[in-house]
Amino acid sequence: MNKPIGQLQPGSIPTGERPGSKKVYQPGVIWPDIRVPFREVAVHPSANEPALTLYDPSGPYTDPNPDIDIERGLSKTREPWVVSRGDVDLVANPREVKPEDNGFAKGAHLAPQFTAPRRVYRAKPGANVTQLEYARRGIITPEMEYVAIRENLRRQANDPFIRDGEDFGASIPDFCTPEFVRDEIARGRAIIPANINHTELEPMIIGRNFLVKINANIGNSAVSSSIEEEVEKLRWATLWGADTVMDLSTGKNIHETREWIMRNSPVPIGTVPIYQALEKVGGRPEELTWEVYRDTLIEQAEQGVDYFTVHAGVLLRYIPMTAGRMTGIVSRGGSIMAKWCLAHHQESFLYTRFREICEIMRAYDVSFSLGDGLRPGSIADANDEAQFAELKTQGELTKIAWEYDVQVMNEGPGHVPMHLIRENMEKQLEWCAEAPFYTLGPLTTDVAPGYDHITSAIGAAMIGWFGTAMLCYVTPKEHLGLPNREDVKVGVMTYKLAAHAADLAKGHPTARAWDDAISRARFEFRWEDQFNLGIDPETAREYHDESLPKEAFKTAHFCSMCGPKFCSMKISQDIRDAARGQNDMGQNDIEAGMAQMSQKFRDTGGEILVPVAPAE
Amino acid sequence: MNKPIGQLQPGSIPTGERPGSKKVYQPGVIWPDIRVPFREVAVHPSANEPALTLYDPSGPYTDPNPDIDIERGLSKTREPWVVSRGDVDLVANPREVKPEDNGFAKGAHLAPQFTAPRRVYRAKPGANVTQLEYARRGIITPEMEYVAIRENLRRQANDPFIRDGEDFGASIPDFCTPEFVRDEIARGRAIIPANINHTELEPMIIGRNFLVKINANIGNSAVSSSIEEEVEKLRWATLWGADTVMDLSTGKNIHETREWIMRNSPVPIGTVPIYQALEKVGGRPEELTWEVYRDTLIEQAEQGVDYFTVHAGVLLRYIPMTAGRMTGIVSRGGSIMAKWCLAHHQESFLYTRFREICEIMRAYDVSFSLGDGLRPGSIADANDEAQFAELKTQGELTKIAWEYDVQVMNEGPGHVPMHLIRENMEKQLEWCAEAPFYTLGPLTTDVAPGYDHITSAIGAAMIGWFGTAMLCYVTPKEHLGLPNREDVKVGVMTYKLAAHAADLAKGHPTARAWDDAISRARFEFRWEDQFNLGIDPETAREYHDESLPKEAFKTAHFCSMCGPKFCSMKISQDIRDAARGQNDMGQNDIEAGMAQMSQKFRDTGGEILVPVAPAE
Repeated sequence: MNKPIGQLQPGSIPTGERPGSKKVYQPGVIWPDIRVPFREVAVHPSANEPALTLYDPSGPYTDPNPDIDIERGLSKTREPWVVSRGDVDLVANPREVKPEDNGFAKGAHLAPQFTAPRRVYRAKPGANVTQLEYARRGIITPEMEYVAIRENLRRQANDPFIRDGEDFGASIPDFCTPEFVRDEIARGRAIIPANINHTELEPMIIGRNFLVKINANIGNSAVSSSIEEEVEKLRWATLWGADTVMDLSTGKNIHETREWIMRNSPVPIGTVPIYQALEKVGGRPEELTWEVYRDTLIEQAEQGVDYFTVHAGVLLRYIPMTAGRMTGIVSRGGSIMAKWCLAHHQESFLYTRFREICEIMRAYDVSFSLGDGLRPGSIADANDEAQFAELKTQGELTKIAWEYDVQVMNEGPGHVPMHLIRENMEKQLEWCAEAPFYTLGPLTTDVAPGYDHITSAIGAAMIGWFGTAMLCYVTPKEHLGLPNREDVKVGVMTYKLAAHAADLAKGHPTARAWDDAISRARFEFRWEDQFNLGIDPETAREYHDESLPKEAFKTAHFCSMCGPKFCSMKISQDIRDAARGQNDMGQNDIEAGMAQMSQKFRDTGGEILVPVAPAE
Repeated sequence: MNKPIGQLQPGSIPTGERPGSKKVYQPGVIWPDIRVPFREVAVHPSANEPALTLYDPSGPYTDPNPDIDIERGLSKTREPWVVSRGDVDLVANPREVKPEDNGFAKGAHLAPQFTAPRRVYRAKPGANVTQLEYARRGIITPEMEYVAIRENLRRQANDPFIRDGEDFGASIPDFCTPEFVRDEIARGRAIIPANINHTELEPMIIGRNFLVKINANIGNSAVSSSIEEEVEKLRWATLWGADTVMDLSTGKNIHETREWIMRNSPVPIGTVPIYQALEKVGGRPEELTWEVYRDTLIEQAEQGVDYFTVHAGVLLRYIPMTAGRMTGIVSRGGSIMAKWCLAHHQESFLYTRFREICEIMRAYDVSFSLGDGLRPGSIADANDEAQFAELKTQGELTKIAWEYDVQVMNEGPGHVPMHLIRENMEKQLEWCAEAPFYTLGPLTTDVAPGYDHITSAIGAAMIGWFGTAMLCYVTPKEHLGLPNREDVKVGVMTYKLAAHAADLAKGHPTARAWDDAISRARFEFRWEDQFNLGIDPETAREYHDESLPKEAFKTAHFCSMCGPKFCSMKISQDIRDAARGQNDMGQNDIEAGMAQMSQKFRDTGGEILVPVAPAE
C-alpha cells in the first residue's frame, strides 16, 4: 500500500491515441482559450467520406504523447476560468486532513499522500459561484461554451443530419448553442457538475436535452480492493467512455484515495459523503451527527468533488412503508439514514439541515444528486408507495436547492419491470420540475445474477429514451461481488451502447451519424473501419481475428459467418449496382432493366468474390 | 473429422441435474403417458417456502443419471404418439443420401454416418398430420397437453399468482389448459413445431399468449467449425435454455451434421433449406432450381426438421427497393433469392411453388418460419419500404399456408432503433393475422460490434413485451466471426433474461414467482439459493467467490459490496422487524412505536452483524 501509486502496474492502461483515431481539440468562440476534446476516427480513403467525430471523456491520457505523472496530477486548465471570475477567495487555511478522514490508518496502512501543491478556493462571502447562478444572471461561462461545443461533436449549425426519433416532449435543439446551454441550466433542466476546486475538469453537461451520459462507480471496500486499483479504475472507466465517476470508497484511506482520484480526473467525480461520515463514527449510523457530516462536506468540497449524493428524502414517516417490502431498503445511504431516523426518532439532519447543506455546496458549486434511498431492490417493490413518497420529497428539495442556486439532479431506480419504467420518468419530470434524472439501470428482472449489466441495460436504454439524463452503470458483478477491471469495462461499454440507443431513439441530432458510419463500413467490408468506429475497437478486432486471424482477411470482401463462397452483403452490392437508378422508373422500365440485368448477371458468371487484396 | 463424435471432448458439457436442482416430470391427464420435464430448485429450509419450478428445455441430458449415447440418439418417446394416430405411413424407401447432400465430401472429409436404425414417416395419402389440422378438428393431441402442462410450470389452476403487466391486447390466460392450446393453434396464433419424424422431441409452443421463447443458431461454415462442435453446441445451447435451435450449417457434411443433431435434440430444430440447396448447385444462386429445392425439403423433412425458414416473400418488384439502402440485403436467404430473381427475372420458385411447398410440409408437419429476406441490416434501413412490402407478402403467404393446415410463424428484424420497434409488432399482428412473430433481436444501435448480444437484447426484450413469441439470439460475435462455445452460452443467457423480462412486463402468470424467489433469497442472504435460482448458477457462484472465496461466506449475512461492517439489507431487515405491523396504525401510533424502537435500537447496540455460521 505504501508504494507510490504511479509506479504500480505501469503501462497497464493504454495511453495515447485510440486505434485509428486522432485526438482533436476545438477552441471556443466566446472563450477562445477553451479546448474541447474529441476523438476523430479516420476511415479508409475508399470510403470517400470525412472522419467521424466521437465524444471523448478520456481526458489528456489519450493525447498523442501524453505527459502523464499521476503524482503531479492533470494540468489545472480550469483554474484561470475560476479565478478570473473574481468571485472566489483563496482559502488561506484549508481544512487539514484529520486521522479519521482516512479511518485512522497509520504507518504502512496509511496510503501515500498526494503531495503536489494545490490551491483551495471558496466563494467570496456573499458571492455565489454556481453555474446555475451565472446562468440565471445571463452569463455564459467557459464551462457552458465548452459543453455546447462538446455536444455538437464538431457538427456545424448548417450541417445536414437525420433525426426521426420520439423524444416524449423533450426540447432537443437541432444545434446546441452556448445560449441554449445557459438557458437549460437556468431552468434547472441541466447541470454542469464542476466544483471550483476541480480545476483538472473537462466540463460536461447532464440534461434531458443533451446526449445521455453514463456514470461508473469505483471504490474500495472493507473486504477487498486497494487505493491504487481505484485510481487505475478511474482512468480505465473514462478510457472506455464513463462521463462521470462516483467514488464510493469505504473503510480506510478514503480521503487520500479521493485526493489521488480528484487530481487525476478529467471527469466530474461524485461521492456519497455519508459513507465517509459513517466511517468517522466507527460505522455506527446512529452516532452520525450534523457536525461530522458538515465537516465531511467541507472536506470533500475543498478537495473538488463535483456532486454529492444526499439522501435527504428519506423521511421518518416513509420508513414504515418499507416494512412490507420484498427487499426492504437496498440503498446503502438510504438504510444508513433510516437507521439513524429510527434510532433518534427524528427526521435526519440531511433533511432538517438541508438549507445549510445548500449554503455549503453553493460556495464551491457542488451539485446535488438527490439520492433515492428508498429505491426498489426487486421487481416486487418497483413503483411502490415508499419509492414515490421519497421522489415527491426529492422534488420539494430540488426547489429548495434552486432557491440557493445550487444545481440539482435526482437519483432514480433500481429494479423496475419494463411496463413500470415510464411511470418513473413521468412522475420525476412532473414532481421534480424537469431537473435531470439519474437512474441506476433499472434492472428489468431479478433472475440473472452475473448478467445484471444486461438486465439493467434494457431498462437503462428505455428510461434514457424516455428522458433520463444520466445512467449509472451496473457491472456483471452486481449483487455478487466487487467488479474487477474487466467488469468495469464491460459495465461501461454496456451503458455506452444503452445511452447511444437512447440518443438514437430520442432523435438527438448527432446520434445517427455514428451508426451510419459503421454501417457503411460494414457494407463495404472496411474491416479496420468497423473496428475503429466501434465502441470497443480492441474487442471487435480480437473477435474477428479469432475466426480469421490473417491480416489479409482485414481487406477481404467476406467474413467468417458465410465464408468466401457466399456473402449476402456482396450480393446486395451487386444488386445495388444493378438496380441503382431504377427507383424512379415505372414498373415496365424496371422489368426491362431487370431483364437486362438478368442477362448481365449470367454473362459475368454472377461473380460475388472480389480477389483478396494483399495485406496492408 | 472421422473420429466418432461421442468420443470427442468427453464430459466437456455437464450432464446430470443442475446445481441445487432436481429434474422432475409431470404426467398428463388426457394423455397419462406423457412426462413433462421441469427443473425444480430447492431452497434452504430456513426460507420456509416450496421449491421453485423452472422451465427446462435441456432434455434428458439433465436427468439424474442420464443414459447418454449420442451414437444411438435420444429415446424416441414421441414415436408412439405419432404412430397411434393412424394417419402416417412408414416410408418404405426413404430418400437415400446423395453425395451432394454432404457437399460431395469423400473419404476422410466425409463425416461419420449416424448408423442407428430409424423409421421414417409420412402422412398417409390424403391425410394431414399437422397440429393445426388436429386443432381445427377439435383434437387435443399429446403434444398439446404436453405444452399446456409445460407452460404452467406446475402451478395449479387455483394457485395464487401476481400479474400486473401490460400485454398490448394479448390474451394470456391465468392458467393454460390443453383446450386453450388447441384453440390458439386452431386460430393460427401459436405453433408447436413438431415434425412427425422428430420423435426425440419434447414439444414446446410458440405464441404470443405463451411464455416468450428463444432460439439459438448453430452451424458450421465454409471457413471454420466442425460437425462435432455443432452437436456439442446443440447440447450446450439447450443446457442453458435455448427453446429451439436452428442448424445453419453450410459447406460440406450438412446432411450428416443435421442427422446427428436431429437424433440428439430434445428441442425443435429449424433450418433454412435454401442453404443446403445452394451447396448442391455449387454455391451459385442462379443455378438453383425448384427440383433441387424440392428434393432438399423432402430430404430434411424425412430427417425430422421441425421448421423451415422459407424466404418466399422476396418478390422481384421489392428488390429495387433495396438499392437505395445503407446496407442492402443482409439476409443470406434473402440475398440468394434476390440474386436468383435478378438472374432469371422471374419470381422465385419459393413464391411460385408456395402451394406445393405447403403440400410437402404438411405431410410431415413441418412448420413455416416465413423468412424476412429483406430485413434491415442497419438502423438507417429500419422499417423501410422493402421491409414492410415483404412483411405484407408474408401475411398473404401465412393465409395460404393455413389453407393447407400448415403451421406458420413469421420472421422479423433485425436492426431497429427503439422508437421504431413497436410499429414492427403492430404491422405484423395486423398483416399476418396474429401468426407468431419470431425476431432477430432487433439490434437497437449499430455502433457496438462485440456487444451486439446486448444491443439486440434491448430490442428483443421490448419486442417480446409487445408480443413477439420467439426471439432469435445474437451472440457477442455477431458481425465479427463465428461464435465459440462461450459466445453461444452468453447469447443464450442474454436472450433468456430478455425473454423473461418480456414475460414479466406482459404479466405472464408464471413470471413473477421466479423474480420473487430470488429476491427473497437475496434479502435473506441465502447465497446458495441465489446462485441456484439464477439463470446461470455456475457464473453467479464464480463471481461471488472471486471476492469471497471461503465457504463460510456462503452463509454470511453480508457480501463484498459493503463488507461485514455495514449492510443495507441487514439494516432493512432490522427495520422490517421493528416496523412490522405499524402500517395499519395512525401517524401518532407510528411515532409512539418509533420512539419505542428508537430506544430498543440503542439498547441493543444497533447490532447489524449476525455471527458467521460455520461452513455447511
